[in-house]
This record gives sequence, C-alpha cells and structure tokens, in this order.
Amino acid sequence: MAKFEQLACQMRKQLQEGIWQPGDKLPSLREKSIHSGMSLMTVLRAYQLLESQGLLISRPQSGYYAAPQLAAPPLDSASAVNVQARVELTEDVDVNAFIFDVLQASKSPSVVPFGSAFPDPHLFPQRQLTRSLASVARRMQPRNALDNLPPGNEQLRKHIAQRYALQGIAVSPDEIVITAGAMESLNLSLQALTVPGDYVAIESPAFYGALQAIERFKLKAIAIATDPQHGIDLDALHQALNDYPIKACWLMTNFHNPLGCTLSWENKQRLVAMLEKYGVGLVEDDVYGELYSGLQRPLPAKALDGKGLILHCSSFSKNLMTGFRIGWVAAGQHARNIQRLQLMSTLSASAPMQLAIAEYLATSSYDSHLRHLRKTLEQRKNAAIQSLQSYLPYDVTIYPSRGSYFLWLELPPGLSSTTLYWQALEKGISIAPGKMFTTGDKYDRHFRLNVSYEWDERCEQSVKALAALIQQQIKAMHSMKI
Amino acid sequence: MAKFEQLACQMRKQLQEGIWQPGDKLPSLREKSIHSGMSLMTVLRAYQLLESQGLLISRPQSGYYAAPQLAAPPLDSASAVNVQARVELTEDVDVNAFIFDVLQASKSPSVVPFGSAFPDPHLFPQRQLTRSLASVARRMQPRNALDNLPPGNEQLRKHIAQRYALQGIAVSPDEIVITAGAMESLNLSLQALTVPGDYVAIESPAFYGALQAIERFKLKAIAIATDPQHGIDLDALHQALNDYPIKACWLMTNFHNPLGCTLSWENKQRLVAMLEKYGVGLVEDDVYGELYSGLQRPLPAKALDGKGLILHCSSFSKNLMTGFRIGWVAAGQHARNIQRLQLMSTLSASAPMQLAIAEYLATSSYDSHLRHLRKTLEQRKNAAIQSLQSYLPYDVTIYPSRGSYFLWLELPPGLSSTTLYWQALEKGISIAPGKMFTTGDKYDRHFRLNVSYEWDERCEQSVKALAALIQQQIKAMHSMKI
Repeated sequence: MAKFEQLACQMRKQLQEGIWQPGDKLPSLREKSIHSGMSLMTVLRAYQLLESQGLLISRPQSGYYAAPQLAAPPLDSASAVNVQARVELTEDVDVNAFIFDVLQASKSPSVVPFGSAFPDPHLFPQRQLTRSLASVARRMQPRNALDNLPPGNEQLRKHIAQRYALQGIAVSPDEIVITAGAMESLNLSLQALTVPGDYVAIESPAFYGALQAIERFKLKAIAIATDPQHGIDLDALHQALNDYPIKACWLMTNFHNPLGCTLSWENKQRLVAMLEKYGVGLVEDDVYGELYSGLQRPLPAKALDGKGLILHCSSFSKNLMTGFRIGWVAAGQHARNIQRLQLMSTLSASAPMQLAIAEYLATSSYDSHLRHLRKTLEQRKNAAIQSLQSYLPYDVTIYPSRGSYFLWLELPPGLSSTTLYWQALEKGISIAPGKMFTTGDKYDRHFRLNVSYEWDERCEQSVKALAALIQQQIKAMHSMKI
Repeated sequence: MAKFEQLACQMRKQLQEGIWQPGDKLPSLREKSIHSGMSLMTVLRAYQLLESQGLLISRPQSGYYAAPQLAAPPLDSASAVNVQARVELTEDVDVNAFIFDVLQASKSPSVVPFGSAFPDPHLFPQRQLTRSLASVARRMQPRNALDNLPPGNEQLRKHIAQRYALQGIAVSPDEIVITAGAMESLNLSLQALTVPGDYVAIESPAFYGALQAIERFKLKAIAIATDPQHGIDLDALHQALNDYPIKACWLMTNFHNPLGCTLSWENKQRLVAMLEKYGVGLVEDDVYGELYSGLQRPLPAKALDGKGLILHCSSFSKNLMTGFRIGWVAAGQHARNIQRLQLMSTLSASAPMQLAIAEYLATSSYDSHLRHLRKTLEQRKNAAIQSLQSYLPYDVTIYPSRGSYFLWLELPPGLSSTTLYWQALEKGISIAPGKMFTTGDKYDRHFRLNVSYEWDERCEQSVKALAALIQQQIKAMHSMKI
C-alpha cells in the first residue's frame, strides 16, 4: 500500500470512530503534513482519495469537511458469524425478463439513464476513433477478413500483451483471443471450464451477465456473500470449495459491478492460493480495471496466476468506445479451446473493428485519453455523491467505489428498490434495482446508479425526485405500522 | 504453413515411417524444443495438433506417446432402403478438434483454399463498402452505440424487411434481430427453441456449425438422411417426428452445405405442414440463398410460415463481405426472446458495421453487385467442374449445386477422404473431408471443394495433384486386395 493510501486508511478509521462528526472541518493540508510527518503531496492525495470515496467534502477556499453521511458497516454484520449463511446454493438459476426490461428502459433518450450499464458515450475519443476507422476502411484488403479470424488481429493482440507487460503481467500474444466484446469472452471462458450440471461460484450480488450465463449453460450457482467494502467473503468461498465440487469461479476482483468493491492484494493472493489448492479455474471479469480513481490500476488476480488457472477477460467497451464490440480473453492454455468455441458461436470479432482499434492504439494516445477519462469520471462521481448526500434521506447509505462509474445504494429496512424503480420510471428516471443482480429475492433494498453522465440540472432534479419517492415509501411504511 | 504445422507435418511423416512405434514415448517438449531449435510453444502446438489428429496420446505427468494403430473406419456401403436406417440418433454429439484444424489449415495464404468455408474475398465490392464505412465513420454520433443495441439498427432492419417483401414474404422490421453474423443468429435461434436434453432433427450430412451447437447446448441430434440431389428425406423426418419428442429442426433448405441440394417447393410445403402438425420450430439456415445460379432466388420455407414456427437466419457474409460479422434472424414471435439471449451473449452486433451496411444498401446497388457475383461464381464453378472431370478418375462422382460455391465429391468405395485430406495438405492443398459434417464415422468417402476462386493454373495443378493422390489410393487398395 502506498503512503497516501495508508494515511487515507488511518483517517477512514478515525472517521468511522467518530473522531470527526459529519460537518466537522478536518486539519488543513499543512497542519496534517506537519503532524503526520508526510509530504504535502501525500496528504493531498489521501484527502482526495477520501473525497472520491465520499468520506470527505472539499469546499473551495475553505478546506476539507467530514461528509454528512458515512457509508455504513458491512451489509450482513449479523450473518457474518456463520459461514454457511454466506453461501447460497441455487440449483436452477432463473433470471427473468426483468433485466431485459430494465436495460431496454434506460436506452431511450427521454429517460434519465441512472439505470444504464453503459458509460456516457460522450466520454469517448470519437474523433480519433472515427479517423482510425476511416483510415483502415481506405486501406482494407480482401484478405483482412481471413487474417482477423480467431485468435484475432495480430497487431491488436500484441498491443494488449504490451499493456499486460506494463503491469508486470506476462501474457503472450498467442494466449490472447479477440472476441466480440467482453460478454463473449466471459461466456466462452465459462464454457471452456465447465459442462452442464457443474457448480460455479459467483459473488452475491453478481453481474447479471454471470447469472444469465449460468442459466443458459445449465450450471449450478453457488453465490458467495460479497461486501461493498471488502469484496467476496473468502472464508465462505473456502468453505464452498471444500463442500461442493466447484469447477469454476466467475468473479470481479476490481470495481465489482454492482458493488464497486475491489479485493485487496492480500485477498487476491489468498484467492489464487485457494484456486490452486482446489485446482479450480477463474473467469476474472476485469472490464472496469482501467477506470480506477487512485494513482495506479489495481492488479488483477491474473498477475498471481502461476498455474494457468485464470482466464482474464476485458474489453475496450467501457473505456474507449461502447458499440465497437471488441474484447478479449488472456486464456493461457485454454486459448485454443476458446478459439474453437468462438469459431462456432460468432466465428470472429468484426475485422474492420479489430483493425480500427489496432490503428487507434498505434496512432493515438490511449493513455492520455484514459487519464482524462478517469479524472472526468471521478469529478462526476463526486458531484453525484454530493448531490445524493444533500437530497436523499439520511438513512439511505451510499457505497462509493474507487473506480468505475457506479454507486451502490441501500435503502432503510422495509423499503423496496423494485417499487422505487417502477415509480421512478413513470417520472422518466431509470435506476438498476438490486434484484437484477441476484437469483433470489435479495437486495430489494438496494440499487445501482450510473453516475458517468455530466452532473447537470436534470440529474439534480432527478435526485430530488428519487428522494421524494423514497420519502413517500418511508411515510407509507410508517402509516402502515400505525 | 505456420512453424508448428510444419513441425507437426514432419513428425507425422516420421510416425508414418515407424520411427516411433505405437506406445513409444516421444521426446519431451523441452528436449524437442532444444533439438529442433523451435520455441516450447511451437513444439507444444505441434504435439497438440498431432494429438487432436489421433496420432499422439498425452498422459498427464508423463508426456506424449505414439497412438496405437487404428483400424480403418467402417464404410457405410449400400444406401438405406428402410426408413429406420435413414434416421440416425446420436445422444451425445462429440465433434472433435478436427473441424477446427481443417478450418485453420485453409486460412494460410500458402495453401490452396479448396477446403475453405469462405468465398474468395476478391469477389466483394470492397471499394463501395469501404466508402460506406469511411462515410459512417465521419458521421458517427456518440448515441449510435446505444441506438444500435438489440434489435439492431432500424434502417438496416427496414432494408432487410423490404428484401423479404420483394420475395413476397411478409416480415416486419420488428421481427428482425441483427446479430454478429449468421452463426450467432443460428445459435440464438436454437437456444430460443430448446433446453438441454431436447431432441433436434438435423440433416445428415450437416453443416458442422449445427453439430457443434448441438454439442454445446447438450441437445440430442437426430440426423436425417439427406440426398445431394433431392435434399432431406421427408419420410424419414416424418417418422422421426412421430417417434421422438423433437423440439426443433435445424435445416438448410436452399443450397445445402456441404451437399448443395435445394428442397423443391412441393417438399418445402410438405415440410412446413409437418412442422405445423407436430408443432415443431425450424431454424432455417439460408445463408447461401442469394447465390443462386438460376433466374430466381428459391423461396425459403419461411415463405410458407403461417404459424410463426420458422426462424429464418441469414447474413451478408457470403454475398457482401466476410469479416463484417453482420447477420440477422427473422424470428417472428421469438424476436424478443432472441434479443434477451443476445444481450447476454454478445450484447449486440458492432454499431459501425451495422451503420456501414445500412449505408451501403442505401447508396450502392446491392442487386447489381449480386448479379455480377452470381455470374462470376457460376463461371468459376463451371470451370472447376470441367477441370475436375478431365483429371479425376471416372469413378469419382461430382455433385454440382445450383447455387453457392461448393461442390460435393464422392470417392469410389474403399477410399478415404480423410487420408486424402492429410496427403493433400502436405502438398499445400486443403479440402474439407466428409467427416467434418457428421457425428459418426460416415462420409469418409466424400469431400467438399470451395470453387469460388478464380480458376487459374494453380487450381488446375492442384486438381491434377488431387487426382494423382486418389489414383495412388486406388492402387494401394488394389495391391492390398492382391
């Protein structure tokens, strides 16, 4: 952990212990620097980190203040004693049309897209990408269609391998298979590791794509309790690995969707040791990895993969362009099998799209775009948190993430996010209710908000409207009690 | 040929020469790498290729061994008289790595691509398409990514619906779902109609994509005898529908791959009547429909679909551009379900590719391109047939098709197209051997040739080489008899 992260950690504890009450002014940067013996820059970074996590608020010309509402302690504090309660077995995953309806609802331009899964499309380097696309279009050769068949464009695979190398992860271009987006690479990876009837460990809540894949391939889901702050419960996973013949895990180790949590480095090490002990493969969904708020991209578990058990999946859809449909999997020994599966499911990713992204990566500054993107997302997220904190009832908990562009919110007991979803949709506002992310009836007090959009008056008014709907539910509940 | 393929070729020869006897341990990967001067990865791939060809066996923790000698597969001699014999039930379809290897082998530019599945890429209107692509690239808007989510680009769906209307088939744009090529639309359609364990009727021989999909979704295949001239045996299909709880059929009613046959209009009527009687859905694969040799495109069974039982799948890959990966399904009442499945498997087809094809269809003359394409393919096919007839032994039967760009050939009894495949590949010529198109050991006397390429001296020489190899097999067979 970097110095500034250690400092932030320490201060987070102090905030949780109530050393600063909501609204209290914190020591100035200079005071804190003198007091802690750390440089001004380190202190600034720590404060910014806490701000990005919604724990502090900065007021220009004034300083930093403790945020009005702090994230509550882990979700299931009571059930955390008994490991069994944290493992939920679902033999037949039945994910209904609800997810489809929610996603379709957030597509319309007239609806406020808080429920959308996609980042604001205006965040992307449209001009450079279309220049790359136009340029490859002019130079396309008849043979390109064949040259870009699985495993996919060689230049693109080399670029991706280089980016792994920069993170210190050894992945050869030959182990990489280009796919029609990460959704395809995740699905093919799961197929490569399992046959129908097998057990698969997933997080609870989980990305709905995992739930649907498990349903489609007739697998059995073992959902492991996952905490918005600390990530998957590794004791529970350990017990599940012990109790069930689990064939694969499908996990989001960085910036979990919908929770936002990132597994610590120590826990990633523990996870990989467990996978190795039980000889279980991991489909690692790392599509939000590039969208970190801190100084460095958190390493995926793949970085620890000495035995070729991890299929690391990602794409350009969240950070370069939605709709191009280019993703990949670093599949190691499974690369050949993945290609075989791909050849029979979509044949290959689109050749011009592969060429266009390879061209963009060779001619434009992807990294400078990413830096700008991260900064913008962080600013928008902070603005959203501030607005939510101002308007939402005090007992709504906000779980901020250190990356991606989602917030996970928890309503007070007795309220329903599904009800909120329908009421909000009538007012032209979409949200992603918790039940999208589970096979059971859980998380009906939770919902996910997409805060990648520019935080304008319409967003502000929508938050007010959501707050009013929540107040309404609280009132209705109280009147029922009387 | 790639390095690993060269190495595998060399080792295959050595195995055939008896350098390693059945059961002998081969050099370890490391030894072979040091000895050959090739990388470990290259050696591994060569070994894996030989393993997939049944020439080597790998034993965990031990290494690779020469496989025991296999007896020649039994030949299916007399054509079936009794209906039962024309229905072949395969509970567990196991399609091996062979198909993948054949397709990969035909990709290399140094190999004569008679075994390829793709039409000559020079046949396509490269210039107009790249102009369309460059033009949409310049005009792309951030919202395009969202607008082209399932069911896909509206303009494109309207164009496709109009083309159905010109054939007299009523399909609304709302029933059409744009997919990442026909392979995806076929797979999604099969998923929409079945659950694992269901029976599916297919042709025998069948397009290998159908075999693989049945394997992947753990369905049970009922393969119905199909004749290169008359198409599927409807009496046998009728009996199968009577005897088994069949949930879906997957058939190619026009220009069957690999046979080339087209079901007559009367037989299509009989087929649809049967589907209606038994309430069974049809996945109709019509990807070659536009490539007819006659005066008019043969109507698909979809034209007779009064009860919404037919999911008609096609694409632009065979007649406009391979590698763009844009296909569709006219799915009727299943359209919504198909979209749900798609959203969780690839999310959507690439947005710029959808836009580019819609732009091409609006601004260029697709029909004049198609007329030219059909004429060229017919000329090339005729040249190929002439050449084959001149050089091949008289007892090799050629089944010409009235559309598409494949020929189906039948060797005299006692010969093997798999043997021919390996021998031809050593001479840099690929063919598609019959066993790619079946779940059993059938069609080992048959092979498919792609004759979409300009019929030049290289093709002529390759046919001579194939003829010589066939003669060689005939001689060897006769000498064995003596």
